[in-house]
Amino acid sequence: MRKIPGGVTAAKGFKAACCAAGIKYQGRTDMALIVSDTPCAVAGTFTKNLVKAAPVVWDQQIVYQEKTARAAVVNAGIANAATGEKGLALCADTAEAAGQMLGISPKTVLLGSTGVIGPQLPLERLRDGLKQMVPALSDSLEAGTAASKAIMTTDTVNKEFAVAFDLPAANGEGAVTVRLGGMSKGSGMIHPNMCTMLGYITTDCRIEQALLQKALSDVVRDTFNMISVDGDTSTNDTLLLFANGLAENAPIAQEDESYEAFRAALFSVCRDLAVKMAGDGEGATHLMEMRVYHADTRENARTLAKAVICSSLVKAMVFGKEANCGRILCALGYAGPAFDPAKIELYLNGEKDTVCFYRDGCVQDFDEEQALAILSEKAVRFSCDMKMGTEEATAWGCDLTYDYVKINGDYRS
Amino acid sequence: MRKIPGGVTAAKGFKAACCAAGIKYQGRTDMALIVSDTPCAVAGTFTKNLVKAAPVVWDQQIVYQEKTARAAVVNAGIANAATGEKGLALCADTAEAAGQMLGISPKTVLLGSTGVIGPQLPLERLRDGLKQMVPALSDSLEAGTAASKAIMTTDTVNKEFAVAFDLPAANGEGAVTVRLGGMSKGSGMIHPNMCTMLGYITTDCRIEQALLQKALSDVVRDTFNMISVDGDTSTNDTLLLFANGLAENAPIAQEDESYEAFRAALFSVCRDLAVKMAGDGEGATHLMEMRVYHADTRENARTLAKAVICSSLVKAMVFGKEANCGRILCALGYAGPAFDPAKIELYLNGEKDTVCFYRDGCVQDFDEEQALAILSEKAVRFSCDMKMGTEEATAWGCDLTYDYVKINGDYRS
Repeated sequence: MRKIPGGVTAAKGFKAACCAAGIKYQGRTDMALIVSDTPCAVAGTFTKNLVKAAPVVWDQQIVYQEKTARAAVVNAGIANAATGEKGLALCADTAEAAGQMLGISPKTVLLGSTGVIGPQLPLERLRDGLKQMVPALSDSLEAGTAASKAIMTTDTVNKEFAVAFDLPAANGEGAVTVRLGGMSKGSGMIHPNMCTMLGYITTDCRIEQALLQKALSDVVRDTFNMISVDGDTSTNDTLLLFANGLAENAPIAQEDESYEAFRAALFSVCRDLAVKMAGDGEGATHLMEMRVYHADTRENARTLAKAVICSSLVKAMVFGKEANCGRILCALGYAGPAFDPAKIELYLNGEKDTVCFYRDGCVQDFDEEQALAILSEKAVRFSCDMKMGTEEATAWGCDLTYDYVKINGDYRS
Repeated sequence: MRKIPGGVTAAKGFKAACCAAGIKYQGRTDMALIVSDTPCAVAGTFTKNLVKAAPVVWDQQIVYQEKTARAAVVNAGIANAATGEKGLALCADTAEAAGQMLGISPKTVLLGSTGVIGPQLPLERLRDGLKQMVPALSDSLEAGTAASKAIMTTDTVNKEFAVAFDLPAANGEGAVTVRLGGMSKGSGMIHPNMCTMLGYITTDCRIEQALLQKALSDVVRDTFNMISVDGDTSTNDTLLLFANGLAENAPIAQEDESYEAFRAALFSVCRDLAVKMAGDGEGATHLMEMRVYHADTRENARTLAKAVICSSLVKAMVFGKEANCGRILCALGYAGPAFDPAKIELYLNGEKDTVCFYRDGCVQDFDEEQALAILSEKAVRFSCDMKMGTEEATAWGCDLTYDYVKINGDYRS
């Protein structure tokens, strides 16, 4: 597997476009379109929030029932959440418009929205946006990058990543190159449960839909579901994976080596996008990573790691470059899983040095200057040796800053 | 029942003192002592954090096994948490010293510590503090107030409250007055699970220890356990209730009318102290209240109310006086309990006016100026009609501010 340039247009047969539809933001693009040349198997994971935005309801019907799709229409600025029947009707109208212009069934058009909860989306602007985007569709890498910028809200950087790997060819003659790339957005209200704010991944791999969904659900647990910016699970979380099969690999129909290669590539893309989202949390100045290892179960490792990166006190401490490891210990203690506080060991892991914070039931003396140097790195990494078993998990978050408060005290206006 | 002045010395036979022991803070009191003239039935609730501070371990032994006590020694500045065997030995030494000076068994001396996690407490300073406090013990209301100030850390105001109520006299001749008063501290790392940071309540009521514990455990669920400042459950949470029986009421030995009167008085004191802690959250500029009513079960009402006051996005919105009700809806949606988003109604409740935010599945149009006026009140109150049943619960928190980040980015130093 190797990293390649690009995002949603890295794989064969995917085109993208974007435009400034003027939905809420002015002077920037705010709408994106992704289209596959041929029908795709589609997999998705969605918010577990009981309050689901209208596009989530729309997408779930297609992913769970139709299981194939051709296109995704995404807007930033307004979330189309808490919009009642009118919001749902708007989804049908948008898909209808896109379907007509693209010459495909509206039931193959997925929708995504992100932004403020409450207001209705203006259908005419969405239609005008589609009219601009359809003739501009391009399979260039730049078109994918432009799309990843158009779906940003409070994000400060766009997020895309792509990999290539080889699989046996369908015609039996050697190997073919398969590509998998994606984009995502998300900066606040980020505490994905099943998936993240908005993420779109495309691949030219030929793979059965059931395995596509299985790989996505598996990988999400250790990537998008392991990040948190503020503990708030959005009403709009949507992650979609399109596979059009144009790489002409021998179809993946069981959990064999090819499936594992595909799964590893998917993990790589999802982890990269997830970590980028965590590091670009609203107002963040540091990416924060917590690795829990030698745990008794994977689920406990995940729960412990996530408790630490969600702790407001740990997040504020990372902002202040304070080596107050008692807060990490405290978060592990209230996380839920059982462990012996007298046995575990806590570390601060710098690029070069490692500092032991806590061992044998006591906070350790450590070199404050060395700790400050490590806490000044852009990515701040903690780890905990549970001394219980062989499982591990890593969670990613960001620090809690003045700017998070500023951004969220003044978001709607 | 009526509010009376004072706190831990409001009830008959309780004395208090405090001193500047110089444990960490300079130029202020940082140590308090509460003593009952006679043995007390004692009840307590403690942190459910797996990492328990040494004084919590010490107190649990006394409350769960001895069930009687005479005194409490409390310090601010250092938490005596993550201090291993040495921290536990210090508890025994402190209780021994207090017991000797007071002429009581060390097994009747409860301990409480709050402050930074990690460092060891200096025994000599604790001993010197006790030497100052024992001769200064006083049953004046001022002594109780001074004690409530000595246990503060990042608190900006001291917290005490007391009530009096009448119960049948033990001698059968009419009624006697029973008094119940308490103090508490807590401002950060406040997300009590079983009780809050540190709270001490005294009463001269005569009541069996089992009923004392039952009343405390019941009341805590709807008071201290319904507040949150930052979602972080401390290693030191301790709430103790001392009953010395000096009011000479007919002993409460069953769940009769007298028990209910006692329980109501206890609820009143616990709620007042809990709400004061929520409103004095680190950096807070607003108290935030969320009332959930017409819920299907009490537990679901509690869970829903608490999710809203814990949401970083709702907290930041209250700081910014933003009427972004989608965030409240979002928090209810990820809280866990099932409900129909199309049926519930959300309100902003001002002292005079009420604004309906959300109804019939849609965010409602409302008067922005009216909402801004209500959001500018010191206590910001939201409510949600679940339209499912008859249960209700209220949770209290505070807004998320620049100062919370500042305080916690720079706490240890």
